[in-house]
Amino acid sequence: MQRVKCIVSYDGTLFSGYQVQPSKRTVQLELEKALKQIHKGTDVRITASGRTDAGVHALGQVFHFDTPLTIAENRWTIALNSLLNKEIVVLHSEFVPQDFHARYSVQKKEYRYKLNISPFPSPFTRNYAYHFPFPLNVAEMQKAADLLTGTFDFSSFCSAKTEVNDKVRSIYKISIKKTEDEVCFSFVGNGFLYNMVRIMTGTLIEVGQGKRRADDMVRLLALKDRQVTGKTAPAHGLYLWKVWYTNDN
Amino acid sequence: MQRVKCIVSYDGTLFSGYQVQPSKRTVQLELEKALKQIHKGTDVRITASGRTDAGVHALGQVFHFDTPLTIAENRWTIALNSLLNKEIVVLHSEFVPQDFHARYSVQKKEYRYKLNISPFPSPFTRNYAYHFPFPLNVAEMQKAADLLTGTFDFSSFCSAKTEVNDKVRSIYKISIKKTEDEVCFSFVGNGFLYNMVRIMTGTLIEVGQGKRRADDMVRLLALKDRQVTGKTAPAHGLYLWKVWYTNDN
Repeated sequence: MQRVKCIVSYDGTLFSGYQVQPSKRTVQLELEKALKQIHKGTDVRITASGRTDAGVHALGQVFHFDTPLTIAENRWTIALNSLLNKEIVVLHSEFVPQDFHARYSVQKKEYRYKLNISPFPSPFTRNYAYHFPFPLNVAEMQKAADLLTGTFDFSSFCSAKTEVNDKVRSIYKISIKKTEDEVCFSFVGNGFLYNMVRIMTGTLIEVGQGKRRADDMVRLLALKDRQVTGKTAPAHGLYLWKVWYTNDN
Repeated sequence: MQRVKCIVSYDGTLFSGYQVQPSKRTVQLELEKALKQIHKGTDVRITASGRTDAGVHALGQVFHFDTPLTIAENRWTIALNSLLNKEIVVLHSEFVPQDFHARYSVQKKEYRYKLNISPFPSPFTRNYAYHFPFPLNVAEMQKAADLLTGTFDFSSFCSAKTEVNDKVRSIYKISIKKTEDEVCFSFVGNGFLYNMVRIMTGTLIEVGQGKRRADDMVRLLALKDRQVTGKTAPAHGLYLWKVWYTNDN
């Protein structure tokens, strides 16, 4: 068996998230359907770096699978794309050793969150950015973001439904960039809890509006209580941007 | 009666074009439905600067209508947007004199055509740019574009189905800009025939590929024959960008 690693980009708009769920259209299901066709009807299970929720997009999601077929490394991209709808595009495929695991071998991940700050919503980005046409103090948001950078228990910044016990994660960098009609948040860390990026974004937005003080982040982390942080920002502004398996760029 | 001018942006993906057609979802129909609601069930007819085909987008389409209601000039934007789906966004509304006509008063129009030139198609721009991952000589395309700039009979550059008799139009400027993953054509002129921008784009692409010589444009214009020019570029890369009613910017 050969293990194959793929990088995949998808528009999350029409999907009920990444993971297979009964009677829902998911990214995993579409990919497994395509692989089943390539394998002449044999089921092939894929493993991703993690799941994404309904409406969340991916630019660089990673998954792996094992195959007995002798298709060349780079041909998997072409074979899969020829069977997939245009909402899912495989960008890269390569052979990896059997000890590579798309989920357990992850070193770092980057998520981005996009706000469309123009006065009117745009018909073209309505599913690809959260329309937020109100004043935001980017310097204050960056100050708060810097206080969230480090190794902390992020219990205050994850959904109350989070099932994992260990809520300690390391955030390496949060950067916030403003252009004419967009504010883009980038979050790089060793892992993210359920809804963590969306809750951090929602809380940072409230800092940007002056509803919270930047230096309050320290207290919010210490409280370990989801009730004290901001609203969960909507799914459609969020992108799984990149997954690293080594510590290089 | 007060005449109101509106600027409207729309995602053409889900529409069968601009103009009302029996049993099809069109932009005009959606706008007239919203106006009918505002007018408590009375039909209100709108007139646009021109129609756009199925799949074609608009950033700055203009329409006008007449109303007996005493809604303030800038409130029409809000009233309409509150009733419209997110694929159509009214960006501006103002009162205009009765002799203003969205179609007949047009001085200039700009259309843009976008190519996505990255190696893989993007799930995010699949409906908003034509994926064309092949080498293009932009300098040659610009040379050809400059030869199409001026006042000519554009019979070779419009659909054979074009119904108007006078096919003379003035193109004021064609500019072509290349960025990392996009080539964007801008066409400014006093008017455009049916499919004219898409045929000009398709022909310029063939120049960019070296399939045609830039200086052949002179001959193509002189032949006045649709058969001699390039393929009609697909609708989903095209945007009605701006409509001018005075000769200023």
